[in-house]
Amino acid sequence: MLKPLGNRVLIKLIENEEKTKSGIILKENNNSPQFAKVVELGEGVDDEGKEVKMLVQKRDKIVVNKYSGTEIKFEGEDYIIINQSDILAIVY
Amino acid sequence: MLKPLGNRVLIKLIENEEKTKSGIILKENNNSPQFAKVVELGEGVDDEGKEVKMLVQKRDKIVVNKYSGTEIKFEGEDYIIINQSDILAIVY
Amino acid sequence: MLKPLGNRVLIKLIENEEKTKSGIILKENNNSPQFAKVVELGEGVDDEGKEVKMLVQKRDKIVVNKYSGTEIKFEGEDYIIINQSDILAIVY
Amino acid sequence: MLKPLGNRVLIKLIENEEKTKSGIILKENNNSPQFAKVVELGEGVDDEGKEVKMLVQKRDKIVVNKYSGTEIKFEGEDYIIINQSDILAIVY
Amino acid sequence: MLKPLGNRVLIKLIENEEKTKSGIILKENNNSPQFAKVVELGEGVDDEGKEVKMLVQKRDKIVVNKYSGTEIKFEGEDYIIINQSDILAIVY
Amino acid sequence: MLKPLGNRVLIKLIENEEKTKSGIILKENNNSPQFAKVVELGEGVDDEGKEVKMLVQKRDKIVVNKYSGTEIKFEGEDYIIINQSDILAIVY
Amino acid sequence: MLKPLGNRVLIKLIENEEKTKSGIILKENNNSPQFAKVVELGEGVDDEGKEVKMLVQKRDKIVVNKYSGTEIKFEGEDYIIINQSDILAIVY
Repeated sequence: MLKPLGNRVLIKLIENEEKTKSGIILKENNNSPQFAKVVELGEGVDDEGKEVKMLVQKRDKIVVNKYSGTEIKFEGEDYIIINQSDILAIVY
Repeated sequence: MLKPLGNRVLIKLIENEEKTKSGIILKENNNSPQFAKVVELGEGVDDEGKEVKMLVQKRDKIVVNKYSGTEIKFEGEDYIIINQSDILAIVY
Repeated sequence: MLKPLGNRVLIKLIENEEKTKSGIILKENNNSPQFAKVVELGEGVDDEGKEVKMLVQKRDKIVVNKYSGTEIKFEGEDYIIINQSDILAIVY
Repeated sequence: MLKPLGNRVLIKLIENEEKTKSGIILKENNNSPQFAKVVELGEGVDDEGKEVKMLVQKRDKIVVNKYSGTEIKFEGEDYIIINQSDILAIVY
Repeated sequence: MLKPLGNRVLIKLIENEEKTKSGIILKENNNSPQFAKVVELGEGVDDEGKEVKMLVQKRDKIVVNKYSGTEIKFEGEDYIIINQSDILAIVY
Repeated sequence: MLKPLGNRVLIKLIENEEKTKSGIILKENNNSPQFAKVVELGEGVDDEGKEVKMLVQKRDKIVVNKYSGTEIKFEGEDYIIINQSDILAIVY
Repeated sequence: MLKPLGNRVLIKLIENEEKTKSGIILKENNNSPQFAKVVELGEGVDDEGKEVKMLVQKRDKIVVNKYSGTEIKFEGEDYIIINQSDILAIVY
């Protein structure tokens, strides 16, 4: 599996179908933020070595800016590695 | 519901009608700041992990720069997620 | 009324007429700073949450750079919300 | 009078005539620094609220970069408000 | 051999063949991150002399942004010297 | 005389003739650094008011980047006011 | 001789011939880093006066980014003055 480094977070976008079932509807606007699930967390250290409190947990459903982070295919699955600072909100 | 991350604030713009009733009239200028209501607050940590004092509270009526933040539709409602630093003033 | 957030200051520009009576004459140059009165003060915290000493007081007559800050019409009056750092000097 | 804010300094340019009498001759180059007299000093706090040691005193004759700061006409006199960091040297 | 300075890391890209055997398939996208092996580590000091915790170890298999760092040929082998902050994740 | 402010240094360029006598030959390249003599030193405070250790002394022969600092003519002599950080090396 | 200031390092590029003898072959790519020898070290203070640990020693063979630093001819020899942060690795 992939362990994100520093203050990064490995996420998996939630498909639109799933979103509609749970009542969440994304705006059609291309720049709307996206919903995703947290898969793995970095250990909470930023690039300068300072401790950064991780504010999300594994399996949290989150809102991220579209086009944030780096897409990566790993063992057949599509993930995105983002900085925690790209997470706008947690859905609860 | 949505819990904004870090020093972010979830707000809902106040419609023009409501504003006129309470005597507030926005300038016609497109770049005028906007009035909004605070819906949810982050826990007061910035993107580098430093504590940031949250200066607004839920239900505060605030003034924000137009075009600040990220629009998001959630459970049928339009919200904006902004950084606290985009809030110019509290209406009291 | 409006309570500016953080290290912001709510000011009201002083009209040219008033200025002439008190002997102050602005240069015709469009980029000359402007005279204004302090209406309300933020609580002295910058956008990163650090305490910032407020160096002006309500009713101070101040000099601000032209085009600083954000214009806002509130209850029929024109104000400007500026950062304290846009204030060049106090008139005494 | 004007009290500069923060780490700013109110100065008055020294006319060319005066300079020639004291033996100082400015280069003809348009970007040459200028000689000025310190009129008033800020209280030594920078825009982030940190204390800044004021290194000049009232009536000091100083060298400033040309085009530094903001010109202001006040009670019929021309002044410039500069940041202390725009002062290159003290003449002694 | 080469000892990277500061918070740098010497890495060797993993060839595509090897990746396919272990079940990892890179996206065809030219900007996909790349897999690499950590060869040598700096001593964990950033360019300003502050201590930076090294988060990877020799022989770790890592994910790095494509086009990060500086390519160098040394004793017939191709390496890349990157900053630790260019490492996105560790494969485990 | 001129007392440089803060972490600035007043220098006088060394003429090419003198350089050749002491065996130093500047490259013909227009961007080659220049040799100069330290005339006066600031008191070792940077523009934010933090103490900065002065690493050169009066009469040191130094190497400075060409086109660094501000040229000033004072009492008939040509000087340059530079930041200490523009000094590359001391000749000893 | 030249004593580099602050966190600078005086280096001398190693000629290609010498590199080939010791088995090091530079890529033909114009942007490949270069091999050099450390001649003199600054005292380990950065431009803001903070102590910076010097990570190299005199006579170390190092790898530096091409086009880093400032070329200087001194007593007939060609040197480069670089910041320590331009050094990528030590050869050992």
